[in-house]
Amino acid sequence: MRAALDAARTGQRGANPLVGAAVLAEGRVAALGWHRGAGAPHAEVEALAQARRAGNDLSRATVVVTLEPCHHHGRTGPCTQAILEAGVRRVVYATEDPTPRARGGAQALRRCGLSVVSGLLAREAASLNHRWLRAVAQDRPFVTAKVAQSLDGRTAAVDATSQWITGVQARAHAHQLRARCDAVLVGTGTLLADDPRLSARDPQGRDLPDQPLRVVMGTTEVPPGAALRSGRWCHLRTRDPHEALAQLAGQGVRHLLVEGGARVTTAFLAQDLVDSLVVYQAPLLLGAGAASVADIGVTTLTQARRLELDREPVRLGEDVLLELSPVERVPPAPAVPSVPA
Amino acid sequence: MRAALDAARTGQRGANPLVGAAVLAEGRVAALGWHRGAGAPHAEVEALAQARRAGNDLSRATVVVTLEPCHHHGRTGPCTQAILEAGVRRVVYATEDPTPRARGGAQALRRCGLSVVSGLLAREAASLNHRWLRAVAQDRPFVTAKVAQSLDGRTAAVDATSQWITGVQARAHAHQLRARCDAVLVGTGTLLADDPRLSARDPQGRDLPDQPLRVVMGTTEVPPGAALRSGRWCHLRTRDPHEALAQLAGQGVRHLLVEGGARVTTAFLAQDLVDSLVVYQAPLLLGAGAASVADIGVTTLTQARRLELDREPVRLGEDVLLELSPVERVPPAPAVPSVPA
Repeated sequence: MRAALDAARTGQRGANPLVGAAVLAEGRVAALGWHRGAGAPHAEVEALAQARRAGNDLSRATVVVTLEPCHHHGRTGPCTQAILEAGVRRVVYATEDPTPRARGGAQALRRCGLSVVSGLLAREAASLNHRWLRAVAQDRPFVTAKVAQSLDGRTAAVDATSQWITGVQARAHAHQLRARCDAVLVGTGTLLADDPRLSARDPQGRDLPDQPLRVVMGTTEVPPGAALRSGRWCHLRTRDPHEALAQLAGQGVRHLLVEGGARVTTAFLAQDLVDSLVVYQAPLLLGAGAASVADIGVTTLTQARRLELDREPVRLGEDVLLELSPVERVPPAPAVPSVPA
Repeated sequence: MRAALDAARTGQRGANPLVGAAVLAEGRVAALGWHRGAGAPHAEVEALAQARRAGNDLSRATVVVTLEPCHHHGRTGPCTQAILEAGVRRVVYATEDPTPRARGGAQALRRCGLSVVSGLLAREAASLNHRWLRAVAQDRPFVTAKVAQSLDGRTAAVDATSQWITGVQARAHAHQLRARCDAVLVGTGTLLADDPRLSARDPQGRDLPDQPLRVVMGTTEVPPGAALRSGRWCHLRTRDPHEALAQLAGQGVRHLLVEGGARVTTAFLAQDLVDSLVVYQAPLLLGAGAASVADIGVTTLTQARRLELDREPVRLGEDVLLELSPVERVPPAPAVPSVPA
């Protein structure tokens, strides 16, 4: 299960949880798989395929997976079916699938006579996806916020110039990120300042196959000639992130990318609605200009919004990519009364 | 020479230039060495020792080094002597040693009958140390600036709390950095706010063997009970970074670490006197509070102070370490007259 958890961490956060799987055969890990994002094979299916290619006898193998195998036809077939077809007789998983559509896999496998054990390292598996689990529980999209900033945390110079703070490789990465999301959101301030197209493009400027819904949030009108009107788009006439997410959930958006500006990003952060933060850090200093994050209600260091690195920092050309997840906030301990109650 | 340049980049910037060396024997690179900082063996001495240990016949070997071998007794013996004693007959180097005390090595080796060739990849070797060469030419210490900041570029919360933004490992690294420097400087603002000791300590709080001179810069008085008075310290009653560096050069300081606050760091940056920038990036958001860098005179993106990563970003516990060097600024092209001259 440890190996499966490590494999899970290799994946990309988004509409689906991070899931990893291991196939154990003859007392060793014969194959590892992880879920690579919406539409890709699920972790256990990938691991099974690998193990089969390596010539393992799957009828004597155990599938170990960090999430209960799914039991529905989504963009991929149900994992329960893949496990049954492989002839595996034993499945160990960490946490239950919380989604109404996909749950029930364990029960289905048991009905077919498999030995199914759950709860192994369940706490670690749940912690890996605690933000995703919360988004599902709140029936809202998983939210990734993207920041492209200078070393000193600024997203534009004093005169509002911001194109391009980051280099070619970081921008290509950001377009891949757009393509992995169901929707990309900016505030009306950014819309009027930069007139972004919000499409996902390759380095040659051609549209990638997967295009997100383009979303503008705010009460200002979207100009008739706005560049983002060239694709599927919508205008959410609200400044409330909760309301925006409810509207997007209603449109089937399961993974939202918030691209700014600082006012919008800050609004999502202040409401604790950012589940994943992607920072492109450019090696330059501005000293003045728009800050990437504005007031989130932190006045002293112990209140700071803490995150943790999801993986090692990576160099993208001249820039550095940081991928982080918020750390669960511990509610402050109740004040000790100064006189006996 | 390429391998020697790559080896040089492995070293640490400071009082001495980055230098790398390769020993070529029987048509291949038999050993690589690099200078690991003040007091450590020079690159060619290290490479020769390695090649000897590996059993190479040094009388038929070539020493390739990115800087002219030194010819003086500093903290280590002259490299020319080490080369002669090793019995090497052929030396290739990239750039001349610009320091009056150490230069003359090539001439000395030629007088002893060795074949000495210079200028191979000289431009790349000089570019590797262009900031160090400039500091030497200006007869001033090499300046490293250190910043410990939040993801959004802040060094303290609104109420000025800043201890500790970074974690244990990043702080231990910062103490090692202090130990590598001749002097550590803060402004009077930081002195009064944090009362730092400015000593180099191990994680248990014990003083490391090498202690920098503790320097306060500014016109405010240093309080009688200030913690830094417990060690060797001095007060530079100036706000001018050039004047501060001249005074420190007069005291034999060859590598200065500027630790802030933002006003002091910004003054050095604005005068283009920061030769190396070390950033400890903590995974937290503050949204408000002191910015790590204040106004450096940049009003539009093309004026941004550009740097480049000296090496891959590194994770230090929860934090990320970035080590950067300023990119040489290209003077703006002369304006094209709008009417014929």
